[in-house]
Amino acid sequence: MPQFMDVHHGMKGITAEGLREAHNADLAIEKDEGVHFERAWADPESGTVYCLSAAPSAEAVQRIHERTGHAPDEIHPVPLSI
Amino acid sequence: MPQFMDVHHGMKGITAEGLREAHNADLAIEKDEGVHFERAWADPESGTVYCLSAAPSAEAVQRIHERTGHAPDEIHPVPLSI
Repeated sequence: MPQFMDVHHGMKGITAEGLREAHNADLAIEKDEGVHFERAWADPESGTVYCLSAAPSAEAVQRIHERTGHAPDEIHPVPLSI
Repeated sequence: MPQFMDVHHGMKGITAEGLREAHNADLAIEKDEGVHFERAWADPESGTVYCLSAAPSAEAVQRIHERTGHAPDEIHPVPLSI
C-alpha cells in the first residue's frame, strides 16, 4: 500500500492530548477508506503536524482527515523511505 | 533525546539509491554531534524529503546535514508523537 506524509499548519499550541484525540478520531473511521494512520509528530511552537499513513490514494487520506475536522494543508506520496 | 523532523525541498527526481546514499552519509558522521537519523521519506515528484532524527538540538541536525552537502530547508522539533 502506498505511503503518504500529510502536513497540517496552524496547529500552534497543540497538546499531547489534542494530538491523541485527533489521531484516535482518524483511526475510528479510517477503515471506511482503506487508510491506516501509522504515526504522527507535532511541533506545538510552529503549529506543524506531520501524519504518516498507508492508503490507496491521497484523496482517501484527505477524505478521512476532512471528516474528522482537520483537513491537511499538504499531502505528499512518499514512495521512497528508509 | 528530543526528536526533530527536517524537510528538504528541491529534491525532484530523487531515487531510492540517492536517498540511501544521502542517509548513509549522515549515518557515517552523525555520532560527531550525538545525532541519530532514524527514518527518511521522499516524494520524488514534488522533490520533498522528510528526515526524522533524535538529536540534542536542531543545530546539531543542521551541522550534520550541512557537512554531507544537503542542508535542510526546515527543522522542526517534534516533542509530541504517536
